Amino acid sequence: MISKTIFEDLVSDLQRVNRLKTALELLEWDEQVNLPSGSGERRAQEMAALSEIVHRECTQERLAHWLDELEAGLNGNSEEADVGTEKLTVIREARRNYDRAVKLSPTFVARKTALNSRAYHAWVEARQKGDFEIFAPFLQKQLEMAKEESGRVGYSEETAYDYHIDKHDPGLTATFVDEIFSSLKIDLLPLVKRIVDSPVKPDTTIFKGFPRDGQESFLKQVAVKIGFDFSRGRIDTSVHPFCSGNGADTRMTTRYNIDNPLDAIFSTIHETGHGLYEQGLPLEHLGTGLSEAIGMAMHESQSRMWENQVSRSRSFWQYWEPVLRETFPTQLADVSSRELFSAINAVSLTPIRVDSDEVTYNLHIILRFELEKKLFSGELTVAELPEAWNSASEEIIGLRPKNMAEGCLQDVHWSGGAFGYFPSYCLGNMIAAQLWYRVKEVYPDIDEDFAKGEFGRLLNWLRENVHRRGRQYGTLELTRLVTGQELSPQGLIRYLEERYLPLYT
Amino acid sequence: MISKTIFEDLVSDLQRVNRLKTALELLEWDEQVNLPSGSGERRAQEMAALSEIVHRECTQERLAHWLDELEAGLNGNSEEADVGTEKLTVIREARRNYDRAVKLSPTFVARKTALNSRAYHAWVEARQKGDFEIFAPFLQKQLEMAKEESGRVGYSEETAYDYHIDKHDPGLTATFVDEIFSSLKIDLLPLVKRIVDSPVKPDTTIFKGFPRDGQESFLKQVAVKIGFDFSRGRIDTSVHPFCSGNGADTRMTTRYNIDNPLDAIFSTIHETGHGLYEQGLPLEHLGTGLSEAIGMAMHESQSRMWENQVSRSRSFWQYWEPVLRETFPTQLADVSSRELFSAINAVSLTPIRVDSDEVTYNLHIILRFELEKKLFSGELTVAELPEAWNSASEEIIGLRPKNMAEGCLQDVHWSGGAFGYFPSYCLGNMIAAQLWYRVKEVYPDIDEDFAKGEFGRLLNWLRENVHRRGRQYGTLELTRLVTGQELSPQGLIRYLEERYLPLYT
Repeated sequence: MISKTIFEDLVSDLQRVNRLKTALELLEWDEQVNLPSGSGERRAQEMAALSEIVHRECTQERLAHWLDELEAGLNGNSEEADVGTEKLTVIREARRNYDRAVKLSPTFVARKTALNSRAYHAWVEARQKGDFEIFAPFLQKQLEMAKEESGRVGYSEETAYDYHIDKHDPGLTATFVDEIFSSLKIDLLPLVKRIVDSPVKPDTTIFKGFPRDGQESFLKQVAVKIGFDFSRGRIDTSVHPFCSGNGADTRMTTRYNIDNPLDAIFSTIHETGHGLYEQGLPLEHLGTGLSEAIGMAMHESQSRMWENQVSRSRSFWQYWEPVLRETFPTQLADVSSRELFSAINAVSLTPIRVDSDEVTYNLHIILRFELEKKLFSGELTVAELPEAWNSASEEIIGLRPKNMAEGCLQDVHWSGGAFGYFPSYCLGNMIAAQLWYRVKEVYPDIDEDFAKGEFGRLLNWLRENVHRRGRQYGTLELTRLVTGQELSPQGLIRYLEERYLPLYT
Repeated sequence: MISKTIFEDLVSDLQRVNRLKTALELLEWDEQVNLPSGSGERRAQEMAALSEIVHRECTQERLAHWLDELEAGLNGNSEEADVGTEKLTVIREARRNYDRAVKLSPTFVARKTALNSRAYHAWVEARQKGDFEIFAPFLQKQLEMAKEESGRVGYSEETAYDYHIDKHDPGLTATFVDEIFSSLKIDLLPLVKRIVDSPVKPDTTIFKGFPRDGQESFLKQVAVKIGFDFSRGRIDTSVHPFCSGNGADTRMTTRYNIDNPLDAIFSTIHETGHGLYEQGLPLEHLGTGLSEAIGMAMHESQSRMWENQVSRSRSFWQYWEPVLRETFPTQLADVSSRELFSAINAVSLTPIRVDSDEVTYNLHIILRFELEKKLFSGELTVAELPEAWNSASEEIIGLRPKNMAEGCLQDVHWSGGAFGYFPSYCLGNMIAAQLWYRVKEVYPDIDEDFAKGEFGRLLNWLRENVHRRGRQYGTLELTRLVTGQELSPQGLIRYLEERYLPLYT
């Protein structure tokens, strides 16, 4: 049996350390939302100092003792049910985090945090000036540190990339991703070709002069209606939209383009999807595996479902189109409902991932996955990256970027040291489609809700089946449990065909 | 002689811990600027966890060893010049901070931080509802903890309030403040009476409909012109304007009232004065006493000089009135230059400190000082505070507050556990006047600069004489050194008479 007191000590310490972690996350949020241009170096130093502390707190010896004791108690207990899945989850996740953290030194962690913060500012400048050389030395160091990190944790040189995939999606490997992406490509490439070659060409340039204030108030209504709780969260603007924080204080960001309101609409709904997941995790367990998202693929499945399955549907716009027209009566006067819906579901090739539609988006991910694999295997050097990116873009997407900002400098992720993150987006798309078909089985008339501006049934279903479970199950396990099927590209392909072929033939 | 290596180790550790402190300060800034209404409890927990860490880092044993060694080196060195004032300052301030911190336990510090954060939210609610009972139990605990803190640090029950004055203005005592305030009152009370009884009654209700955006852009111009560096700082809005952060990232706040642009103008210039002090401290020494403001009285002397001596002068408005009229052409169409200047220098009694003019402001401080003294001596209980406040207001200011928001719930300070802070404002007014007369001796034509929109000579003089010196001198010492006179109310009285009597007779 496991000791109640030790378990309580463990949880209380995990909660305390989690408060330090979320303090660190607030510094990162502030860095991207508020930081004055000349304060970057100071922030890098602050984050380095705090991350060193967080690391030290995560690797205290007493944690090892507590975990040893608790695990010994578990081993003596053949009836898992007696312990409870919840306790098992807390202990398992604490062990995983401890074992990984303890293999990294505090100075390594501080060095990495400071590097990432400096690299972010270098990337912003490099992207602005279209000059890869400004960012290259940082990326080089980040790649080296990423490899060093996987080595320290115990991965071989050959499996270094696996570690970074596992970091974002525990349990997954590069081989798994490779297989599933290969399978996806078989059906996706011809589908993209059919759509792109179709004579139907939606006009996405019909939007002009949508003031930011109007976009903001419209999107605030949408976010509230789909269930985001602004008493425990907020939305700001940043260069690259993101969602950070936790269920007690969820910080989302978006960005506004006055000549393309769809950008803010789908970015905001996407981040709101992430925010809903965070707000749906059981708050009382914050700091333990019970209140942590399963991984980034599951996180993306939430953001992508709200962004795509829900918000690009006819029924969604039945409710929201009148509200949008009320907000922008003159700007939309000459835009018909058909044109609006057609622009919302426009599919076309673009060199930029965040500008891409939900069909071709997956190609962008495959491109990045291929390049990351090669960067980790050594087949590709940082210096060769710009050209390799452009060639891969031509080959996979069918477009050659005109400049670095359209090419290998377009994404923020690497500048934050986040390798192995991109696959999560595409896996998230697959999970979203699978969950969506399950929802439609349970509630065949769910679309009717959206047409009435009601989203509670969907949100509650996601809360029950995904959010409230925290990390009790892994990505593959939960997908299987909830949808009755293995994670695969089939649902995504079916969904894309069902939604887009009627529009493009 | 003192060890170079140990000194370097000390400085490097002070800098590291300072980064954690400013991380904690960012959480406090965010709490007042951004925090969602329902996230207060979480923030309290985060700040408690981080303040416990900061306290632990401030009280590491190695600090004591280093300081002992360095002080032993100093004692063996009769030639102070060999060591350098700078090193002496670093060691003296580090010793002061260490000796105080080590007497407080980590849990005491965490408990205090959490209490202050919760008390702040209770105060916001209490003030909104005009219900003292909501805040009273928090204030009671804060007062108890404040007394406990002074006891732990080694102050007697009789001198508990001295500790809190010394915390904000090292070296000063309640007795000192008492004497200087008594002396101030002798001249101030008849001066206030002369002005208030004057037949001249400026009309301050002439402003209507000044959009926030215009106020914001006007004030940004002012802040830049007087020397604030927005590449290392920013300005946001909060309930109660404040300035936090440091020279590497200075965070100011203000607030906007569309029917009273003067509120934002003087609040913003006031906070900019604080910001300029922070930005003028030597950045390379951040984390040591060389880059720390002397105390809050000196800090207020900077904010008050920019707010009052500079920004209420005729010459200042010679430059800025046309800019203001350009920003608000219709709103100011019916306001004459004379009316505008008269409103800027309006003196009248109000129950609220932050709404008061620079003459009667000092009465508000005297009131708070009298009450704080009694709260610490036990002569006054928290329960008796509302009535005691109202009576004191009637007696000292001549007005009885109509409700709690106008009375004892008006200020944010106590809700943050800041007792002994208020005297700094009035002492700051005195220092500002003394510095101002010194500036006029050095640059008799300084007003002509302002009329041309030039503020560099004044700022440079302040930088040289005050800012860049950090904590090398104490409040009284620096005042004497720079002005050639002891800190006294005479300069303030002379300044108020010279500025206001011509306007009110």
